[in-house]
Amino acid sequence: MSQASIGDMLNDKAREQMISMSNNNKNISDLKAGEKTDGFYLIKSFEVKKTTNGKQYIDIDLVDKTGEINAKVWDYSKEIETIVAENSIVKVRGEVLEWNGTKQLKINKVRGKLQDDVIKINDLIPSAPIEPTEMLSEVKSYAKKIKDAEIKLLVENIMKKFNSKLIYYPAAKKNHHSYMGGLLYHTLRMLRSGEKLGQVYEYLKMDYVYAGVILHDICKIIEMDSDEYGVVSDYTMEGKLLGHIIQGIKEIEIEGDKIGLNREKSIILQHMVLSHHYEPEFGSPKKPMTPEAELLHFLDIIDARMYDFEHALDIVEPGQFSDKIWLLDNRNLYKPTE
Amino acid sequence: MSQASIGDMLNDKAREQMISMSNNNKNISDLKAGEKTDGFYLIKSFEVKKTTNGKQYIDIDLVDKTGEINAKVWDYSKEIETIVAENSIVKVRGEVLEWNGTKQLKINKVRGKLQDDVIKINDLIPSAPIEPTEMLSEVKSYAKKIKDAEIKLLVENIMKKFNSKLIYYPAAKKNHHSYMGGLLYHTLRMLRSGEKLGQVYEYLKMDYVYAGVILHDICKIIEMDSDEYGVVSDYTMEGKLLGHIIQGIKEIEIEGDKIGLNREKSIILQHMVLSHHYEPEFGSPKKPMTPEAELLHFLDIIDARMYDFEHALDIVEPGQFSDKIWLLDNRNLYKPTE
Amino acid sequence: MSQASIGDMLNDKAREQMISMSNNNKNISDLKAGEKTDGFYLIKSFEVKKTTNGKQYIDIDLVDKTGEINAKVWDYSKEIETIVAENSIVKVRGEVLEWNGTKQLKINKVRGKLQDDVIKINDLIPSAPIEPTEMLSEVKSYAKKIKDAEIKLLVENIMKKFNSKLIYYPAAKKNHHSYMGGLLYHTLRMLRSGEKLGQVYEYLKMDYVYAGVILHDICKIIEMDSDEYGVVSDYTMEGKLLGHIIQGIKEIEIEGDKIGLNREKSIILQHMVLSHHYEPEFGSPKKPMTPEAELLHFLDIIDARMYDFEHALDIVEPGQFSDKIWLLDNRNLYKPTE
Amino acid sequence: MSQASIGDMLNDKAREQMISMSNNNKNISDLKAGEKTDGFYLIKSFEVKKTTNGKQYIDIDLVDKTGEINAKVWDYSKEIETIVAENSIVKVRGEVLEWNGTKQLKINKVRGKLQDDVIKINDLIPSAPIEPTEMLSEVKSYAKKIKDAEIKLLVENIMKKFNSKLIYYPAAKKNHHSYMGGLLYHTLRMLRSGEKLGQVYEYLKMDYVYAGVILHDICKIIEMDSDEYGVVSDYTMEGKLLGHIIQGIKEIEIEGDKIGLNREKSIILQHMVLSHHYEPEFGSPKKPMTPEAELLHFLDIIDARMYDFEHALDIVEPGQFSDKIWLLDNRNLYKPTE
Amino acid sequence: MSQASIGDMLNDKAREQMISMSNNNKNISDLKAGEKTDGFYLIKSFEVKKTTNGKQYIDIDLVDKTGEINAKVWDYSKEIETIVAENSIVKVRGEVLEWNGTKQLKINKVRGKLQDDVIKINDLIPSAPIEPTEMLSEVKSYAKKIKDAEIKLLVENIMKKFNSKLIYYPAAKKNHHSYMGGLLYHTLRMLRSGEKLGQVYEYLKMDYVYAGVILHDICKIIEMDSDEYGVVSDYTMEGKLLGHIIQGIKEIEIEGDKIGLNREKSIILQHMVLSHHYEPEFGSPKKPMTPEAELLHFLDIIDARMYDFEHALDIVEPGQFSDKIWLLDNRNLYKPTE
Amino acid sequence: MSQASIGDMLNDKAREQMISMSNNNKNISDLKAGEKTDGFYLIKSFEVKKTTNGKQYIDIDLVDKTGEINAKVWDYSKEIETIVAENSIVKVRGEVLEWNGTKQLKINKVRGKLQDDVIKINDLIPSAPIEPTEMLSEVKSYAKKIKDAEIKLLVENIMKKFNSKLIYYPAAKKNHHSYMGGLLYHTLRMLRSGEKLGQVYEYLKMDYVYAGVILHDICKIIEMDSDEYGVVSDYTMEGKLLGHIIQGIKEIEIEGDKIGLNREKSIILQHMVLSHHYEPEFGSPKKPMTPEAELLHFLDIIDARMYDFEHALDIVEPGQFSDKIWLLDNRNLYKPTE
Repeated sequence: MSQASIGDMLNDKAREQMISMSNNNKNISDLKAGEKTDGFYLIKSFEVKKTTNGKQYIDIDLVDKTGEINAKVWDYSKEIETIVAENSIVKVRGEVLEWNGTKQLKINKVRGKLQDDVIKINDLIPSAPIEPTEMLSEVKSYAKKIKDAEIKLLVENIMKKFNSKLIYYPAAKKNHHSYMGGLLYHTLRMLRSGEKLGQVYEYLKMDYVYAGVILHDICKIIEMDSDEYGVVSDYTMEGKLLGHIIQGIKEIEIEGDKIGLNREKSIILQHMVLSHHYEPEFGSPKKPMTPEAELLHFLDIIDARMYDFEHALDIVEPGQFSDKIWLLDNRNLYKPTE
Repeated sequence: MSQASIGDMLNDKAREQMISMSNNNKNISDLKAGEKTDGFYLIKSFEVKKTTNGKQYIDIDLVDKTGEINAKVWDYSKEIETIVAENSIVKVRGEVLEWNGTKQLKINKVRGKLQDDVIKINDLIPSAPIEPTEMLSEVKSYAKKIKDAEIKLLVENIMKKFNSKLIYYPAAKKNHHSYMGGLLYHTLRMLRSGEKLGQVYEYLKMDYVYAGVILHDICKIIEMDSDEYGVVSDYTMEGKLLGHIIQGIKEIEIEGDKIGLNREKSIILQHMVLSHHYEPEFGSPKKPMTPEAELLHFLDIIDARMYDFEHALDIVEPGQFSDKIWLLDNRNLYKPTE
Repeated sequence: MSQASIGDMLNDKAREQMISMSNNNKNISDLKAGEKTDGFYLIKSFEVKKTTNGKQYIDIDLVDKTGEINAKVWDYSKEIETIVAENSIVKVRGEVLEWNGTKQLKINKVRGKLQDDVIKINDLIPSAPIEPTEMLSEVKSYAKKIKDAEIKLLVENIMKKFNSKLIYYPAAKKNHHSYMGGLLYHTLRMLRSGEKLGQVYEYLKMDYVYAGVILHDICKIIEMDSDEYGVVSDYTMEGKLLGHIIQGIKEIEIEGDKIGLNREKSIILQHMVLSHHYEPEFGSPKKPMTPEAELLHFLDIIDARMYDFEHALDIVEPGQFSDKIWLLDNRNLYKPTE
Repeated sequence: MSQASIGDMLNDKAREQMISMSNNNKNISDLKAGEKTDGFYLIKSFEVKKTTNGKQYIDIDLVDKTGEINAKVWDYSKEIETIVAENSIVKVRGEVLEWNGTKQLKINKVRGKLQDDVIKINDLIPSAPIEPTEMLSEVKSYAKKIKDAEIKLLVENIMKKFNSKLIYYPAAKKNHHSYMGGLLYHTLRMLRSGEKLGQVYEYLKMDYVYAGVILHDICKIIEMDSDEYGVVSDYTMEGKLLGHIIQGIKEIEIEGDKIGLNREKSIILQHMVLSHHYEPEFGSPKKPMTPEAELLHFLDIIDARMYDFEHALDIVEPGQFSDKIWLLDNRNLYKPTE
Repeated sequence: MSQASIGDMLNDKAREQMISMSNNNKNISDLKAGEKTDGFYLIKSFEVKKTTNGKQYIDIDLVDKTGEINAKVWDYSKEIETIVAENSIVKVRGEVLEWNGTKQLKINKVRGKLQDDVIKINDLIPSAPIEPTEMLSEVKSYAKKIKDAEIKLLVENIMKKFNSKLIYYPAAKKNHHSYMGGLLYHTLRMLRSGEKLGQVYEYLKMDYVYAGVILHDICKIIEMDSDEYGVVSDYTMEGKLLGHIIQGIKEIEIEGDKIGLNREKSIILQHMVLSHHYEPEFGSPKKPMTPEAELLHFLDIIDARMYDFEHALDIVEPGQFSDKIWLLDNRNLYKPTE
Repeated sequence: MSQASIGDMLNDKAREQMISMSNNNKNISDLKAGEKTDGFYLIKSFEVKKTTNGKQYIDIDLVDKTGEINAKVWDYSKEIETIVAENSIVKVRGEVLEWNGTKQLKINKVRGKLQDDVIKINDLIPSAPIEPTEMLSEVKSYAKKIKDAEIKLLVENIMKKFNSKLIYYPAAKKNHHSYMGGLLYHTLRMLRSGEKLGQVYEYLKMDYVYAGVILHDICKIIEMDSDEYGVVSDYTMEGKLLGHIIQGIKEIEIEGDKIGLNREKSIILQHMVLSHHYEPEFGSPKKPMTPEAELLHFLDIIDARMYDFEHALDIVEPGQFSDKIWLLDNRNLYKPTE
């Protein structure tokens, strides 16, 4: 029996509580073989298995915002299975072993989160550095800057439609911004950059820039299945067969029709979504044909790259190179000494 | 003053007549420098110009199914301009000159088509080798073979919508099947081949094969502007910014919604349209993920290639090679001696 | 001591018997850890090894048409080694264990096939779905349809030469049709499809289509070393240094010369073999220059793809996607719900 | 006898005057066949030639900021040749002819610029839209923002070295910013954009951003030979054999050494110059390994593209597409109706 | 009536004579518009044509080793046509005109070569810098160095077979060594280089090196149709459909069989021919798998490149760059000042 | 505690001794599971670790010229740790085990090298087949052949600068010539080949050939960190950010300036270094523009390939194929039977 999604087991109240709790765990990435640990972690999935000699044990994958570790409860009891099955967040006590270079947690004791345990959800789950509601409100303020009433209405309608999911969706299954709130954070930084560059390249039509940014990835919400912790289990059937670019185009076509959006404007926005990956082999069969579509592509790629560089260098010492970053064509990045 | 489209100037009655007329022109491709000609041609476009010393003349591009020739009426008169402006089909008398290796027709006399002139439209305009109505009826008979009621209804509705244009649209601006009725002819041969291969690969779901073939290119009708002679003046604005693949997907989405088409079926058909060009650089951001989508691609390309080979070798002597065919990666094709 | 090839140890009589035997094994792909099994399998290879503490044991790879499993006889005796060494097909009794996620069979008992055991060879070895002799006879009937007497003679002579191996050769070492009789099955389906498409594209010269299909891959028989169960141990020296395309061309040149085949026809057929992989990077330095050579390529690729799709989707549930298929550019294929 | 460079024939005083003169020419791009013209143009080059029957004439290429036209003085006289040879700017009177679709100016009268003629140099020569001195001073103000004293000194020293040429050099022989002052204008807009994006991606080290932008293309000044009107006659020998990227790296190495620049900083700046074209096939054998190097590339390409789009759409009517733009992979750009 | 091949009209005696004649023509590449010329040239082709007003004239293409010029005899007479038709080499007197930037020779007088005219064939036809017989004898001396008796016999037999054509065949229709004796010259220099490198890389089997070099291109003789002046009119039918690599492989297979050549050696030599173009897109579906095959490729390409560089720089002044060389990826080559 | 570099622990005297010692070890590549060994090996690195139950042991990586093996001293004592820490070369006695298909050496006894032990350093470390001093002297003799005094001085100065490292540096971290003295050996063989080919292509300027070869890779010495045994631990910071090509160019620029080297010559040499990898994606943004630069590339690649083929085939039996060689695009090389 495996646990499909963390979110399924928590009611809204539980989530609120968690957010207000403080946490004093050792981070998973800091666990060292030979040491003991005693703290809170999130259960990503678990399974009851048997050893070769038929003994039952519980195999659990634990996560926090710093990483993931496999753990074992060797002394199986129905009672412990129940604790594991009924709690998303557990307090475990155990010792860290190393097996063929991989760390493993031998759990000696486990209990569910109690009323008084104080844990911050952000410590257990990787997420955007700004509060979702704050991000959403700033994105909405950009939508308000759109002067063309029709385009503004279109953008607001589509945002409204996806509102509840926008608040937590990641921007990807893996890669850049693949965490809770990542889609919103990616969109927001692109809007900020777009606004700035509009001050340098003054001939740009900012209505299209803002609308294009807000709509360009919004159908990732129907391309991927994410739980409310920003963890994507898989792509949807339509996502795999068509992809968020095609889905986004249809969205604009249909929502545009509903409000009688001028056909040319609708097509221009659809074209922006269609062309924003720029290269056919990345999913854009047409290259940008308007300056705003061209800029949209660069806003998108700059935000992804600035994210990738920042995060890859986070864990590098000054004066050192990172490991090869697959996402960046296997580059070794360099962090200057000052 | 140039003549945008031949079709604009002919009423339906005139078209009917023309079809029944017999023709005894010399073919344009057979005209030789030094010879005279006296026959019927179609006016593709014309313009009144001035020579360097200020004299007016009429510059006309004439076509028939075998090619195109530039012609001049040096003795301008308002009366002749009127004849040229008011007639699509004219009888001209003149002599063929050669200028830097290019033939040119010096027109001495020109008149419009009279009531009694008997001309076959197919002699003046390149077109598919089967009667449009016959093709349309055969295509419809394939639509009838679709067993799934929803899919059949979708296909028939979309065909109905484009019915009047399907009858004459070419399959391309240039390249394969770029002539009157070409889209229908291309579709029909793919249906025939699809049916045959379905007898070899029996596990194929023929409903998707037939629906996919009929719908795969149908939005070329809204991607290109063609007159009723199958001559494409240009791509449409939406055609340029999105393309017939994207347009076709939206069509299925919207028309499917109207009839409550099962969502999975709609997505599968949209996926077939999306993937039928196979390679990203040819416009398909997704590769086929169902056997029917895979086959659709090969039906499409085989029909295009069989067309290209047939036409390129038409004008080659047995035992000889063709010139380099740009469309076929500059191959020189070979025509066996027997 | 390892067993090079299954076929080496079976006389013809044994093979005949096997074909008539019925089988009630559990399929290897169905074996589950913790269960017992008792049935017939084919020995792919075996080796007597020692444990770290010096004890001898027998390591055996067993196969049936559904897959392969490693097995161990821990209680070594000279007698058991003899049984394993002298039988291709054995009846084993044992239990299935799992080791680091890989299944393994612990053999408790093993005996050779007895007179009365009834086993169908097709259950033990993957093979084409049609009887080899039936396939061969249908392929020969296509050769008979060739109207040009010289070309027909060439094709029949070459088929005769390879006759005894054609009956069991696979079409590849791995990938599509890499099973017993695969070469013949691939050829046959291409002939059927070629015949059908010849009814749509009537200008094709069917003599070249049929001869091209039959000859295009026939030198795979001298490119690869296959035992009579369709298992390819390796490519031949000439196969590696030249490849079946070059070998096929030489075959036509030499066999053509022997019967005084008209030179042009010989070159056209050689060209068809040379160009049938279409792209230089897939082994064809020339692209097809005749319509029949062009079609040959598409018949070949369609048959391979229809095979790949069918087999990949065989094990997928309706409404689900397959795993990534490496052979198909890592596509996830989709199986519609109905 | 041809005129190598316009700049060779003008002293500084003449240049100053020209700048203050007003101009009432018809723009070259507006000249129409059949019309007369009477105005000031710049002589790009001229040659005395002979007609087939041996008569001398003067062949002149005239330019203004809107384009170029070939002109002929059919009535040759030594006196006219002298006028043409001794003046860069001439007043011509003549009529516009058309020859095989190309316009040509038949000059009837020609004289040099007189003391009282008032012409603005910007009307005759394409140039950046901001005054060079103003641009230079803004670029210098960015150099001043560099906090690291060593890097600031390096940047200021290199700028000083190229100061006199920076004022007029174009950014390219053709393509984007290939006009007088183009290098400075390109640099300036990148600095502005870099500053803005530094406000969004706050972790960036702005010292490297500013220094990288100012230095990235500065060695175009020794890669190309430009006259002081921003017209590049050719690349230099070193420019062709090494290119401005390699030249820029050596410049930083050597100038850095002179001031004892910290070695790591020097290498990081050299790496920024080396990697700013991003792709090996565009001249960068290394990809960016620092966030500032990564951003530099995008600042560069965005400025180029925003330039290309703006200029390509300048001459397009709203609601229309541009011609194919070779520089932009043959895209047809679209100008929205509003 | 056009003249297919120069060689058709000369008997062997005439050729011998020509070779001993001295020549005092102006080179075609030195002819200047406005000058007169009086000298010997070779007729490449000619045709009797008519002017627009019906007058007959003779259009002749003349060549010498430095280039080609079109010439006209405006005063047609049957007698002059006969002179032109019956002589390959003519003495012409005329004046050089220029027409749209192209030089043309107006012939005033023309006569055939007389008994006493002394002309060196090498002045009229571009050819290798060593006497053919001398080259052939050196190539044969390398064949003699092959120690393996079978391989030596194979090489000598194949050389004998092509002996008479080897003496004059070019190595290509255009590009490197596309002149009389070019194939032999290319082969010879590769043999020399191979011998030298065999002294550095001593483990190489020189038998394969020498045999591989001699055989690698020898079937260009049956791939192309060349007249005895090294001018290739076209590729042969087999050349176009298969190419000299495939032809060479078949040659080795068949000639090897005749002398009972050890099969492994035959296959290794065939593999060398097959792989010597190295890249699939240049005609080699297999890459070299032996060191000698690997070296063969580099001997081939070095000789081609050294030829291309030498000839491109021949006409460049020291300290200057060549024009873009299409054959060398549009590089501008540089000639150092000393 | 790990041992960073072998060289750090040996004084020069020790090195000399080692060179004169004879060795009678079993080669590491010959060690078989179940056997005992007793011989000298080099310690590549070691670490004191703990088993899961807390017992200390020493983990050592041993190498000789044939390969590498992991060894364990299970009975830890401070004394043994000292022996391992203080000796680079140790005599070990133990037995070979096999663990999951990997061999491991269980060490029973270990001691440092004694005064009387005679070991040849070349048996312990892979290195070039010629004595370094001999190679250096031959390379210097080529430098002496340079006739241009300035270029000769430049080459000699740069060689002097890197003299002490040239003697042992490898040509690469891995791949061809990645062993002690490999850089020198690679350079030497290219000089020999260059000299030979200069005899075939006599127009080449040998000064540039010799100087180009000697300088082309010399900055690998500052691109990589190698110990004196030719083992590269990593690339340097400048090596990663710029690479040896860019470093070599700067070296020539600066050293050239010091001796007043004629600028054109300096640029030509820099261009040779810049272009010697030939393709942008291999690090050369410019293609060779002089014949000597073109040749340099081929000398380089031929030497690398002749090395790769020789070494790959070393371990192949005649008549057999090698495994796939990743470096050679996964080719299987063939070794002829004779």
